[in-house]
Amino acid sequence: MEDLETLLKQYKHYQDLHLDLNMARGKPCKEQLDLSMPMMDVLNSQADLNCEDGIDCRNYGTLGGISECKKLLGDIIEVDPSKIIIFGNSSLNIMFECVSQAYTHGILGSTPWCKLDKPVKWLCPVPGYDRHFAITEYFGIEMINIPMDENGPDMDLVEEYVKDPYVKGIWCIPKYSNPDGTTYSEATVKRFAALKPEAKDFRIYWDNAYSVHHLYRDKEDFLLEILEQCEKAGNPDIVYKFTSTSKISFPGSGIAAIASSPNNCAEIKRWMGYSTIGYDKVNQLRHVRFFKDLDGIKAQMRKHAEVLRPKFEAVESILEEELSDLATWSKPNGGYFIALKTKGIASKVIARCKDCGLILTEAGCAYPYHKDPEDSLIRIAPSYPSLEELELASRILCLSVKIETLLNK
Amino acid sequence: MEDLETLLKQYKHYQDLHLDLNMARGKPCKEQLDLSMPMMDVLNSQADLNCEDGIDCRNYGTLGGISECKKLLGDIIEVDPSKIIIFGNSSLNIMFECVSQAYTHGILGSTPWCKLDKPVKWLCPVPGYDRHFAITEYFGIEMINIPMDENGPDMDLVEEYVKDPYVKGIWCIPKYSNPDGTTYSEATVKRFAALKPEAKDFRIYWDNAYSVHHLYRDKEDFLLEILEQCEKAGNPDIVYKFTSTSKISFPGSGIAAIASSPNNCAEIKRWMGYSTIGYDKVNQLRHVRFFKDLDGIKAQMRKHAEVLRPKFEAVESILEEELSDLATWSKPNGGYFIALKTKGIASKVIARCKDCGLILTEAGCAYPYHKDPEDSLIRIAPSYPSLEELELASRILCLSVKIETLLNK
Repeated sequence: MEDLETLLKQYKHYQDLHLDLNMARGKPCKEQLDLSMPMMDVLNSQADLNCEDGIDCRNYGTLGGISECKKLLGDIIEVDPSKIIIFGNSSLNIMFECVSQAYTHGILGSTPWCKLDKPVKWLCPVPGYDRHFAITEYFGIEMINIPMDENGPDMDLVEEYVKDPYVKGIWCIPKYSNPDGTTYSEATVKRFAALKPEAKDFRIYWDNAYSVHHLYRDKEDFLLEILEQCEKAGNPDIVYKFTSTSKISFPGSGIAAIASSPNNCAEIKRWMGYSTIGYDKVNQLRHVRFFKDLDGIKAQMRKHAEVLRPKFEAVESILEEELSDLATWSKPNGGYFIALKTKGIASKVIARCKDCGLILTEAGCAYPYHKDPEDSLIRIAPSYPSLEELELASRILCLSVKIETLLNK
Repeated sequence: MEDLETLLKQYKHYQDLHLDLNMARGKPCKEQLDLSMPMMDVLNSQADLNCEDGIDCRNYGTLGGISECKKLLGDIIEVDPSKIIIFGNSSLNIMFECVSQAYTHGILGSTPWCKLDKPVKWLCPVPGYDRHFAITEYFGIEMINIPMDENGPDMDLVEEYVKDPYVKGIWCIPKYSNPDGTTYSEATVKRFAALKPEAKDFRIYWDNAYSVHHLYRDKEDFLLEILEQCEKAGNPDIVYKFTSTSKISFPGSGIAAIASSPNNCAEIKRWMGYSTIGYDKVNQLRHVRFFKDLDGIKAQMRKHAEVLRPKFEAVESILEEELSDLATWSKPNGGYFIALKTKGIASKVIARCKDCGLILTEAGCAYPYHKDPEDSLIRIAPSYPSLEELELASRILCLSVKIETLLNK
């Protein structure tokens, strides 16, 4: 490694460029958004806006979504359409509502969480997704870290914790997880499906956000379908599965859905019926008419991969070149993130990058209460910047890791 | 009036037609939906989907909505864009969320309703909107009937009830109200604005669903703008105002918003930030590019009126012809409903219509707990059926009123 003086000189050079770089959020870039522009033509003023069931999608009603959209989203996450309920544009919004309803009204007859004598607890595989943790924090739920390894969350710990009747849920991103790209092993999925929690209202929040979001055609991770496993294990009601087209079509204007057992779906449709007359069916129809079927989705995802893959490879190659002795990082086969693990200097590196015009997700973001116990993790989101910006940003990041390593020896 | 035998013969004749008529819900008809079809062309694959602020509407973010959409919806309800927050496609959904947040987290620092020792109470002007009452019932809130007259709710009663610290809200449809078409008088609005409720977290839910929904160009009801009145009265935080384009563009695929004081808006945006990354901005942009401004909205509403007016007039003329001695009814200048008041036989008339193939909204629907204390009200929704169906339905309705009048003498 270069000496500190040389490194600081390079750093000063970058500072003088007054850069404005951002690797903070998992947002698709313009090229990816452009891939869905033909979708804007499929429903023009001459189009028939009746769906297959003969329902006029422009009018009120059809709580739970139109049949062909249930089929399409069901195919994406390998679930029968009868188990799918379509909401609006945000799966996060569905998760929030599920927690909120459990808090105010309880689940399948159990005591509403707001009426319990003690706060609810929640298992949080770490590192994980900041917006998940924000929801449970907002409801005053006590979050418990569960370490992840290459097979998923530590299932010994999960099985132990669910003996506590106040443990009511767990956040999971089972495929190409945010941020470390892990896909849960078959054994892990089976252990989830076979969980015997003390709380009858314990639910696995299975956020399958990246189910078809592969980077490589020859290296696609495989995830066992959990609803079927839960049924086999005699545990059909234990899981809520979520999906959306946010990173397939347009992030702000896609379609989101929940899949679950008949009991859970009936309950969800009941409270949904109080909160709306129905979600946007024209947009549901637009998505179906554009993508047509799972093959259409897969073709679209290959185009996304062609945009994303060079970006991931660029970052990984610079990390390899610069940091091989100083840090470790994930090499995901899909999803939106690279997890860079430093030796206890994450917050200092992130601050140093910021002083050089590079915004990274804030330190601790991947942990409940924003507390990374080892101050180790830096989440890299390579999707949004251009390849050129990304290379520059990666150099600055590596330089900052080197400088902070020397300063904190 | 004809004798019972003659009437029953006519009824049998209609029964033998095996009709399938529906005057139950306030749904726009196909001709009205067709008015917005050109909206499907304004954003095609060649369109620039950046909004005025330069934000790419296809991507994540912009909680609270794009500027030009805030302007448009603000103009519809006479509120500055800075006081508007755009949500998804349903204003009912925003109302549900406001009640839910008050229940789980409280309002501006007050105790969350779920933590109070007694149930919250709510004022319900009657007749009113069943889906409003369903929300408060769902949250276990005790609903109190407030009679309406031609000036709006009985304000003496409202002012008396708000002295109770457990009274936390009131449902209002201040213009062309559902179902009786009343527009609150200036004096009523001023008394609302000047309310001094004991509960600091009391809110007026001002559902301005029919603000521009006139039937007659020469008879437009005027409603005083309430936010401004509340500010003047030193009561800026007391009201949540709601609007949507549901009956302007497409009911299932429109835009909904809340308007309120800076304090309330800040709090709403805070909890909104936990529940979503943002609502559908492409649809916001689509609406603005199509309607352009308030003049565009007004032009559209005149086209709606041309479709709706003959339907209202047809029903009113048949009621006049058949029931002048047996019932009274509203003759609204706008909105979606006619309220027919019978002499204590509403449920029997509705059942008799059903046996003849005519579905009306169920008896009691316009009252909390579905209990019409006088079994008087029948809500007529003339918008959806064709003129021909509507005339037939109105005849059957009148016939049923006559028969039940004789049978219940």
